[in-house]
Amino acid sequence: MKGVESDKIALKRLKEFGQSLYEQIKNNKPPSFKMPTRTKANIDFIEGDRRLKLGERMSTRSFLNYSHTRKFMQSVMVAAACEDYIKSGRTVGKRELYYNLKHSLPNSKQNTFEDDTESGAVLNDLEASLNVLREQFHVIAKGRGSIYGDLDLRQAGDEFSCKGLGRGGWVIPGYTEDVEFLNHNAEFILAIENDAMMGRLIEEKVWKKLNCLLVTGEGMFPRGVRRFIKRMHEELKLPVIAFVDGDPWGFYIYSVLKYGSIQLAHLSDRYAVPDAKYVGMTMDDIDEYGLQNVTEKLKDVDKKKIKEEMEYPWFKHSKEWMNQLKKMLEKGVRLEQQALANKSLSFVAEKYLPEKIEAGKFLP
Amino acid sequence: MKGVESDKIALKRLKEFGQSLYEQIKNNKPPSFKMPTRTKANIDFIEGDRRLKLGERMSTRSFLNYSHTRKFMQSVMVAAACEDYIKSGRTVGKRELYYNLKHSLPNSKQNTFEDDTESGAVLNDLEASLNVLREQFHVIAKGRGSIYGDLDLRQAGDEFSCKGLGRGGWVIPGYTEDVEFLNHNAEFILAIENDAMMGRLIEEKVWKKLNCLLVTGEGMFPRGVRRFIKRMHEELKLPVIAFVDGDPWGFYIYSVLKYGSIQLAHLSDRYAVPDAKYVGMTMDDIDEYGLQNVTEKLKDVDKKKIKEEMEYPWFKHSKEWMNQLKKMLEKGVRLEQQALANKSLSFVAEKYLPEKIEAGKFLP
Repeated sequence: MKGVESDKIALKRLKEFGQSLYEQIKNNKPPSFKMPTRTKANIDFIEGDRRLKLGERMSTRSFLNYSHTRKFMQSVMVAAACEDYIKSGRTVGKRELYYNLKHSLPNSKQNTFEDDTESGAVLNDLEASLNVLREQFHVIAKGRGSIYGDLDLRQAGDEFSCKGLGRGGWVIPGYTEDVEFLNHNAEFILAIENDAMMGRLIEEKVWKKLNCLLVTGEGMFPRGVRRFIKRMHEELKLPVIAFVDGDPWGFYIYSVLKYGSIQLAHLSDRYAVPDAKYVGMTMDDIDEYGLQNVTEKLKDVDKKKIKEEMEYPWFKHSKEWMNQLKKMLEKGVRLEQQALANKSLSFVAEKYLPEKIEAGKFLP
Repeated sequence: MKGVESDKIALKRLKEFGQSLYEQIKNNKPPSFKMPTRTKANIDFIEGDRRLKLGERMSTRSFLNYSHTRKFMQSVMVAAACEDYIKSGRTVGKRELYYNLKHSLPNSKQNTFEDDTESGAVLNDLEASLNVLREQFHVIAKGRGSIYGDLDLRQAGDEFSCKGLGRGGWVIPGYTEDVEFLNHNAEFILAIENDAMMGRLIEEKVWKKLNCLLVTGEGMFPRGVRRFIKRMHEELKLPVIAFVDGDPWGFYIYSVLKYGSIQLAHLSDRYAVPDAKYVGMTMDDIDEYGLQNVTEKLKDVDKKKIKEEMEYPWFKHSKEWMNQLKKMLEKGVRLEQQALANKSLSFVAEKYLPEKIEAGKFLP
């Protein structure tokens, strides 16, 4: 059972964490723990590895360091609570965690936590220090996004299919560590930016026609969805193809899917899919498919983002991506997924995607 | 078949619309059509009827009125496209509609539509003029929100259950006119603001314990979700109980569920659930359940919204609601759903909801 394995590891690390603090106290040492430094300066993009990675720098959190005391206390509280959550088989959201642990300290007006940014920061520390995902601690990411396709799952005692669900689909919950993959009939995962496009592709039965799993995160893929895609990619050996808007925001969504985010660099090996490919929208699609009349003018904020992205190492060192970014600036336009509806509603399903995917017309 | 019925009505109205224009032209009259005026001044809140309603005022859209010509042309285009969508069994999103219909007019540099606000406005006109929902025209609202519980549905040739789906649930799609209700075992619908609270209640199996259908719209219920709730309420005869944050935003979400929104006043009979009740969070919960330590201070924007709401007729004429709003201002705090986690994670499922619902402790 997947969930049980994940729980075991997390409980083991939590126990080691507690034991280490206990040993230090028993030996009259001020208790402390270490974790990798999570500043931008300690993040590397290793091309061979094709992933954002944390460097070697470590920080220490010490109980007797006045400026650490509060965070130290909070870390121990969160660790203890996570042990409870795992043992009781419950999961909590970030805000629920905060409310669950908030109380006034005895004989003081101090609260344990003042905001969920405090509990969230401590959770990030614990993830990095113990090398355990927050999902493994049963603290869950926002559940937003869904899947549709020929995939049978088991979770929480239920067995069900992600196809045959009318026009809807299965909500990808924030916690998917306990999902077991039973059967599937699919050749790849299509990761879709826009939920209206998801609706279109369900309606056109693209999951069946192209034999794929349709996944959307409704905009930026939340970490719960990325984690689920990663698990399907690794355990079902399915390639991931991204289908997003042809604009700096779509490009960014793709890069986070592929390389990880700066914020979660310490965990990118468990979220990022370095093999992911990009099917569209591209700047070349405009002439290729005659979409000149349905581009949208770039706004200043788009142009600013494009220039920023030209400095990101994963775009900067890629001829193809720099080419896309330059063309976008030159043409001064962006191209949304749904612009394809200008040809016909079924164009995306009957021509655009099958043609490009069969010919392997991808950006790296 | 539900979907077929809805299609029939929409096609009939579209045909009548076209015929009326055709007759006018044939009789050498400048073509025009009428629709109810949708300004705030023409919106009434009728207490007996407990719903926002459009008044009697009508506007005319005339082809030969220079300032109407563009909108008139657009209305006819959208009407023709909707006929196509219905006949081909396809649904489109708002943005897809815009892209689908955008093109340059022959021998001119004029585009049919410049933005989806233009196509959206025309769609609103057609809805009001023909008294047909956009969903019946196969133009769909954002699909955001989900359902969990003992309810079997048929849609698009599939039969499936909204229970037994692990920790997920069924995505409520933007188009649910064609959903057929097969079987259900539930006594009421619990409409939940927050998707993390939805996750909590799925995990605690509240749908089973309290014999209800759990529905969330992830914040403000989008119109697709409200429409689906309305259909379940009417066709399955299930009462609707709202469970939202104890703040002006939660109150507002509830009021839209119950009375409709100003924007959609012309359609509130097909969205609003005037019988809906409010279980929480309330200002009285703070003392009742000892939640003093997990309230959040009101911000200026909250206070402003509270004062606005005190002028809304549906709050203004309700002693209970004015009492809530006044208490909120006096205490200067708001109370989130998830604050209940301060008692324990299962408190909401084992005590708060069962106690209040069994005792019928509702706000009107």
